[in-house]
Amino acid sequence: MENINVSVIGAGNVAHHLAVNLQRVGCNIRQVASRSESSVILAKKVNAQAVKSVAHLDRNSDLYLIAVNDDQINSVSELIPDHDKLIVHTSGSVSINVLPGQRVGVFYPLQTFSKDRNLDFTNLPICVEAKQPADLELLLQLGQLLSQNVSILNSEQRKAAHLAAIFANNFTNHLVFLTQELCEAKGVNFDLLRPLLTETFVKINQSGNSLENQVKKIQTGPARRNDQKIIAQHLVDLGILPRHSAIYQTLSNSIIKTYNEL
Amino acid sequence: MENINVSVIGAGNVAHHLAVNLQRVGCNIRQVASRSESSVILAKKVNAQAVKSVAHLDRNSDLYLIAVNDDQINSVSELIPDHDKLIVHTSGSVSINVLPGQRVGVFYPLQTFSKDRNLDFTNLPICVEAKQPADLELLLQLGQLLSQNVSILNSEQRKAAHLAAIFANNFTNHLVFLTQELCEAKGVNFDLLRPLLTETFVKINQSGNSLENQVKKIQTGPARRNDQKIIAQHLVDLGILPRHSAIYQTLSNSIIKTYNEL
Repeated sequence: MENINVSVIGAGNVAHHLAVNLQRVGCNIRQVASRSESSVILAKKVNAQAVKSVAHLDRNSDLYLIAVNDDQINSVSELIPDHDKLIVHTSGSVSINVLPGQRVGVFYPLQTFSKDRNLDFTNLPICVEAKQPADLELLLQLGQLLSQNVSILNSEQRKAAHLAAIFANNFTNHLVFLTQELCEAKGVNFDLLRPLLTETFVKINQSGNSLENQVKKIQTGPARRNDQKIIAQHLVDLGILPRHSAIYQTLSNSIIKTYNEL
Repeated sequence: MENINVSVIGAGNVAHHLAVNLQRVGCNIRQVASRSESSVILAKKVNAQAVKSVAHLDRNSDLYLIAVNDDQINSVSELIPDHDKLIVHTSGSVSINVLPGQRVGVFYPLQTFSKDRNLDFTNLPICVEAKQPADLELLLQLGQLLSQNVSILNSEQRKAAHLAAIFANNFTNHLVFLTQELCEAKGVNFDLLRPLLTETFVKINQSGNSLENQVKKIQTGPARRNDQKIIAQHLVDLGILPRHSAIYQTLSNSIIKTYNEL
């Protein structure tokens, strides 16, 4: 298992973190295919050969790992020279069915990767799927080399997890950006908000796993109280910031509906 | 300073945490006024007298600290027996001008309080305001007994900070609730999202203080790339969850505008 031969397709953040960490746990990263210059850097880092096109990959790997943009997965996979080897993609939102042949699967790390931050893989959630039981077993074992947190998810569940990740990461990050922008617009030091952000996260993190448990219960604020007078005043105050107003309104409506309907 | 005599008006979370912590640093909490039963519990805890109505407070305190709902601050303040003593409220969004007389001020702790969690006050942001310089000095000193993080904010700035807090706390908490709800609806274990939430917070927390610095730069996702095809697909997938769809749409629009306009 540790000596499995891998060809990596793509040289972005996901390709980079997976290649480096798979090598760390003993996999043999043989080739890295990407048109971009960063394939040379990644190939050097993991002691692999850099090739310019997927069509130039050889047939000598056991696993072809695709880590490219969602809309390129299908076309890239068709170029892989040997469809009898295991071909997997690493995307949350793309179905297993876009891959050619029967030996196909998915190896999806549910995390946000940055170029310059090394992530601890120990508890990183890895979601695997495969068409054939033997390939599923191989992907489970490969995942478990990297992480204690490997799950089998079908394409529908993985798509849902990916959507949930957009709420948990993309949208919360944007809310904090809007917080910062509001502070700058009004001459307030954003540092004043940091202890609140920390406490907000601590309370969420301590919350339980079901809807009945706490994240719902710890909600506060004017929308939670359905305080229409304060909400109207806040919308007046935000008038000069149209994006803030729209989001204040939509999120307040959602909070009001959540606590009035249930 | 430490021996200042304080009457607390209100017995909710803010009244509770402020009374307990002011006593801890040496203030003498003499009376607690509230119609609710919890005033008896709080009064007992800080060794004070519980009174049922603000009108029954005596004139022997140096500071009357109002911690009631925003819309009751004005009426409650009128009932305080002695308008020559310093009267302050603790609200983010209410102007100093709702308080009667000239010896008035604000003592606003910018944090989310829970009944059953003790907060470390050491770095808790306290925003103070007063009409008279001597009172402002007193509130600064009082704040500094509790925290190393005391700022002078006028009513406009405090209102902005309070609005920013709604984005940073109320709305992020609701987004995590929606994440949890989405997971339950689609049969995905919410635990899979926790490492992502942690990493999201760590990255935000490491970010700098200005708009040019990172919270804006670390944004990822389909809206960041203005990937209309994926966004349309996600809205189809969320069709059965109307609140999720509305928020997905509004936040994606805001992200698209943020990165296309600037």
